[in-house]
Parts: sequence; structure tokens; C-alpha cells
Amino acid sequence: MTSERMARMALSCVTEPANPLVARAIAEFGAVDVWEGLLAQDGLMSKRARELKLKEVVSECGSLGIRFVIPGDDEWPAQVEQLGCCEPVHKLCGAPIGLWLRGGGDLAKLCARSVSIVGARAATAYGERAAGELACDLSDAGYAIISGGAFGIDAAAHRGCLAGRTPTIAVLAGGVNRAYPEAHASLFTRIAKDGVLVSELPPSEHPTKVRFLGRNRLIAALAIGTVIVEGAVRSGAKNSITWATSLGRITMAVPGPVTSAMSYSPHQLIRNAEAVLVTNSLEVLELVCPGAPDVPRPAVQRRATDDLSENELRVYEFIPGRGSRSAEELAMRAGLNIPVCLSVLHSLCDKELVMLNPADQWQLKPASHVAMADHLENAGLRLL
Amino acid sequence: MTSERMARMALSCVTEPANPLVARAIAEFGAVDVWEGLLAQDGLMSKRARELKLKEVVSECGSLGIRFVIPGDDEWPAQVEQLGCCEPVHKLCGAPIGLWLRGGGDLAKLCARSVSIVGARAATAYGERAAGELACDLSDAGYAIISGGAFGIDAAAHRGCLAGRTPTIAVLAGGVNRAYPEAHASLFTRIAKDGVLVSELPPSEHPTKVRFLGRNRLIAALAIGTVIVEGAVRSGAKNSITWATSLGRITMAVPGPVTSAMSYSPHQLIRNAEAVLVTNSLEVLELVCPGAPDVPRPAVQRRATDDLSENELRVYEFIPGRGSRSAEELAMRAGLNIPVCLSVLHSLCDKELVMLNPADQWQLKPASHVAMADHLENAGLRLL
Repeated sequence: MTSERMARMALSCVTEPANPLVARAIAEFGAVDVWEGLLAQDGLMSKRARELKLKEVVSECGSLGIRFVIPGDDEWPAQVEQLGCCEPVHKLCGAPIGLWLRGGGDLAKLCARSVSIVGARAATAYGERAAGELACDLSDAGYAIISGGAFGIDAAAHRGCLAGRTPTIAVLAGGVNRAYPEAHASLFTRIAKDGVLVSELPPSEHPTKVRFLGRNRLIAALAIGTVIVEGAVRSGAKNSITWATSLGRITMAVPGPVTSAMSYSPHQLIRNAEAVLVTNSLEVLELVCPGAPDVPRPAVQRRATDDLSENELRVYEFIPGRGSRSAEELAMRAGLNIPVCLSVLHSLCDKELVMLNPADQWQLKPASHVAMADHLENAGLRLL
Repeated sequence: MTSERMARMALSCVTEPANPLVARAIAEFGAVDVWEGLLAQDGLMSKRARELKLKEVVSECGSLGIRFVIPGDDEWPAQVEQLGCCEPVHKLCGAPIGLWLRGGGDLAKLCARSVSIVGARAATAYGERAAGELACDLSDAGYAIISGGAFGIDAAAHRGCLAGRTPTIAVLAGGVNRAYPEAHASLFTRIAKDGVLVSELPPSEHPTKVRFLGRNRLIAALAIGTVIVEGAVRSGAKNSITWATSLGRITMAVPGPVTSAMSYSPHQLIRNAEAVLVTNSLEVLELVCPGAPDVPRPAVQRRATDDLSENELRVYEFIPGRGSRSAEELAMRAGLNIPVCLSVLHSLCDKELVMLNPADQWQLKPASHVAMADHLENAGLRLL
């Protein structure tokens, strides 16, 4: 009598991930019946099933520190089951049969507050910087960063998150004991310390293109929202955004120079309203965590003229940069009657912006030239 | 008996632009009655009216080569009259009383196919390059570029347009005989050759902040759409976008590095769906000229594996980068039955991607290693 866990583990060992038929069968009949049915049948998959040495897999997992989680486990991220009822992408779909995990983090807890960051492998320095800063700030804000462990944006996102307060999650297209790319072996070790390495594939399996496409759907499904940082015309990262859209997740994109081919995909996604433009972690939080405080506008420099009334501003602007004018002339140019203009001039005087000279003409107060220059500069003017 | 033209010219000389009261009075009673009424009244504006020496203005215009156009003239851009019935911005509104023009271009004809480009004076090299290229490409596509003649983005847009096939239009906040900024005197001369310098203000008047705000509404009103290239938090360029929105014109924004403070305004406008992201002239044309051909996607490099069927791709991916595998093993891994797998292998053989070696095992065809590397690279893999 096979247990649900053993049946799912076995099925995970002999089937390819994101196989809609297998997923639907398990949803309908349960993993145990599907597994026992498979053993009883002919055909290649059944042959593989009968040849499977599950005990060896279990003991290998024990020695490698790999655990296998299934629906119902505390660590199971229930949101991935939405993959069972969303639109297929590239004919792939279905909830994972189970997940192979390695690392000290709790997958379900970390994913509950998480953002996926995806992008080009051949990223630019700008893209890696943007991804790293975004990941680090979100990590400090208590959000785990999920990515694919690849070169470029993925690595920058993982490293940025490792620099912050919250662990990071790498979703792999091969076994979680297999470093792909090999150059990231030490990065994966650091991720596994407090975070998690996740895969639908049993230990030692290697990635294939189809497995990458299936993996992308998990990156989108595990997180609250997905951000694409860079992607050329032909971008695998866009595939994760497609999955996120299909799952009704929040989709975001970081813009870049229009002269950069690597920003093509983000720009097109924003242009077609398939993703929301985001420039920093606060804008991401605003979307993934509706309760979050509003994004503060960058501080704007106050100007001496900011607090002037409309009439004060009008009169002030007709006072020449050099020389002086009579109250009557100023009144006429500003379109005010003389009493009003005089009271305005006196309040400008109190604010030390203008002064009455011995010739009974109004002119800028020497110190005020700076304020005026500053003010006119803001208005697009220079002292004439 | 004053003519409509003389009345409008006179009113333009003694009133500030974008004054809603004056505009409404002219719309209701006609310029002649408003002018004669003004002469009969008391108050400062009437005083200025009575002191106006219109003959001198007319002769000055003659000697400076400045013309004054009003509704009904061939060169009058009728679309600016929509300013008479749109939402006020900063309490300013109203159609212009008339327009003072200098230059060899026909304002109405040029504006019929035109795009406004606005942005920061303190622009970055990136912003000036983006504005210049956009302007030049649109000019070559037959569109006149409208801008404000200021430093930074404005100047880059005018210069880009001058480098193209179509003249450019500068809308000024002072008299069209007065170069503001002075450093742009020669630029304005080049613009005036085949293009037009436009202002609501009579000759020799100097700009004020209010006049700049009024001028911005003309930049938005004259063109089919307005593009903002760069703008900091506190950006005058955003004011033109506000006018364009209020007029129901097409609003567009060019993104930039998220690390650049100068891209703050474009990013916020895109993020809040107040402007559409555009990265080049074709995307602008797609919006301002619905008949235009679709934007071509950048050419994508073809790969040897692009034309493989799903089964061919599946089998191909299970052939190791080094070494070889039997047909049966490949069939099992690919989840195909052996006859199907063999036919797939033979078609891959015909496509010179794989070969059968003397040991009756299937391996990559030497030349195919390149295609495989290329293919796997695209799939995010490297040869294992």
C-alpha cells in the first residue's frame, strides 16, 4: 500500500513537470491510484515506473539534505495549486506533483511575502545594478526575492536579497543538488543557508528547455508579483510575466535607456499595459502590499518665491533684474490698481525681496537677486 | 471704425495671454466691441489701451518681418480654438486672441502634421540624444517638431528637426523678435528660415512665469501629440502634458534609467497612465497617425533548432553534449515509443543535427555542437 507522499514522489521521478495529463489525472483520481495504475500499464512511462528504485531516491535525499513536500504539508505553498486552473502557456500547465527542497528556510512562510525578479542572462551593468538594489530594498522591507539562479539579472537579484534582511529562493530547472550553472555552486550554497532551493525535478536531474519553461511558471506562481528588469526581443523572462498574467499575479517592469536593446521587453510590456512601470522598491510595495505607505515624492527644494500670493508673484516678476520701476508702472504691467499694487509691494518689502530706492522707484533688494535668479531659472528665465 | 484684425492686435498688446475673462468676452461680443468697450472704460487696462500706439506696432512688425494672424486667416491653426472650451490649468485658459509669427514656414500647414517635444532644461546627455534622434526621425517622416526654444530638451528637439526634412516651430513666451535665451539667437534664426517662431505676445515683450505657463498650453494645442523626454520632480514640461491631456491630445513619455532623477516625471506619467511609453519615432507615429505601418519588431536571429517539431526538440535535448545514447534510452527520456523516437532521430539526422555512431549510439553531429550550444544558451543552459 503506497502512501500519497510516496506516490507523488514516485510520479515526480518518472514524469516531466507541467504535464497537463498527469496533473489532471492526479487531481481527479489521486496520486496513489495514478501511480498504481501506471505500474499496471504497458508503455515506456510504466517501464520507467517499474524500474524506479524509490528507496534509493529517499536515501539519496536523506544524505543530500533534500526534502520532498506535498499538498497538506506545513511548508507546501498552496498558491501553486492555482496552476491547476489557469491558462496553459506553450502547452504546459498543471500544479506541481510535489516540490524538492534544499535549505534552511521555510518555503511557505517565505513565499507568503515574496516578489519574483526575472530578467536577461546577458544583462547590462545598469540592469544588474537595478535588480540588485530593488532586491536588497525589498529584502530589507521583509520580502523574500524569488528568481531562477541564472547568470545576469537572476544572480543580481539573489545577491541583492542576500545583502538584505530576508532570505532568497532559487527555483531550479534541474535537481536541487545540481548547481546549474556550475559557476553558481557557491551562490546556491549561500542561498540554501537561510533560504530555499526549489525544484519539481528529483535530485541530479539536469535542466532542459521544456523544464526551464515549466520552472518559469513556478517562479510566477510562488510570488505575489513578478518584476522583469531586462530582456531583449527574444526573452525567456517574458515567459514568467506571461505566467504571472495568466495567474492573475501583479506584473511589473523596470524601464531603462531606450538606446538599450536589453530594455526592449520591459518597455514593450509597459507600452502594451501588460506590466506596470516600477522604478524602486516603494513602488513595488505599493502594488504587492496595498496597505503600504504611499511612495514619498523626492524632496523638492523650496524657493523664496514659493509662498508668494498670485498678485505678489505677478508684481515681483515685473521688477526688472537691473534698474527699477515706479509703483504706477508696475501696477499697470501687473494689471492691478495702484493701492493694491502698493500693498503688494510693501508685503514683498517685508519679505525682503524688493526695496524702495531714494528715487522713489522699486527695485530688487540686493540679496533678492539670488532668489529672483533662482525663481526665474525655475520659470525658464535668466536675468535679462 | 476698427477692423477685427486691428482690434485683436490691440487687445493682444494690452492684455496678458491666457486671460479667461478677455478670451470669453471676445468669444461673446467680438474683438471690436471688446476693444471699443475697453477704450471707453476707466481703470488701468483702459489707460494702457488709450496709450497704445498701434501704428507704431504695425510699422515695427513690418520692419522686423513679423506678421499677426487671426481666426479666419489661411495660416491660422484652428485647433488652438479648442483652448476656449477645455479645463483651465493654473487658472489660465482661453483661445489666443491672435498669434505673432516670424519665419518662412506656414504655421497651419506645418501644425497639421506635427508633434511637440518638451522636457527639462537641465537635461542629461542621454535625454538630449533621445530627443534629438526622435525629432530627426519624425522630421524625416514628414512631421514638424514643436517646442519652446529653451535650453536642454527643447534645443535638442529643434536641432534634431532642423537635421531632418521638415521645418520646426518654436513657441516663445516673449516677442518673436527677442531671442530668449540670448544664446539661442542663431538657433532661432535657423528655425525662422523655413519654420516659424510663434508667440501670443507683441514684439519686444519679455517672458514672465505666467507667460511661460500660457505658452505651454499653445505647445500642447498646436500639435497632434506631445512627448516629454526628461523632467525632474518639479518639471515645467509636465505642465505641457497636463494641457495636452486637458485638450484630449495624445500624451507620450520617453523612459530612461531609473537611476536618473531627470527621468522621474516621464516614469511617473507612464506609471499613472497619464502618458504612453514611447521608445522611438515609429511608436510615436503609430499613435499620432493611426494609418501608419505597424512598428516592426527588431530582427531576431534564427536558430538551427527553431524549425524543429516538439518531438524533434524533445529528443534533440536528451542527446548529451558529450558522449552518446541509445535510441531506446532517448525514447524513454523523451517519453516517446521507440518507433516514433527512431523516425524523429532520422529526421534530426536529415537536418544534420545528430548522427548514428559505429557503436549504434546516437550523438550530436560535430557541426551541430554549435547549434546545440546556441540552442541551449537560448534555453538558459550551457553544455553540461
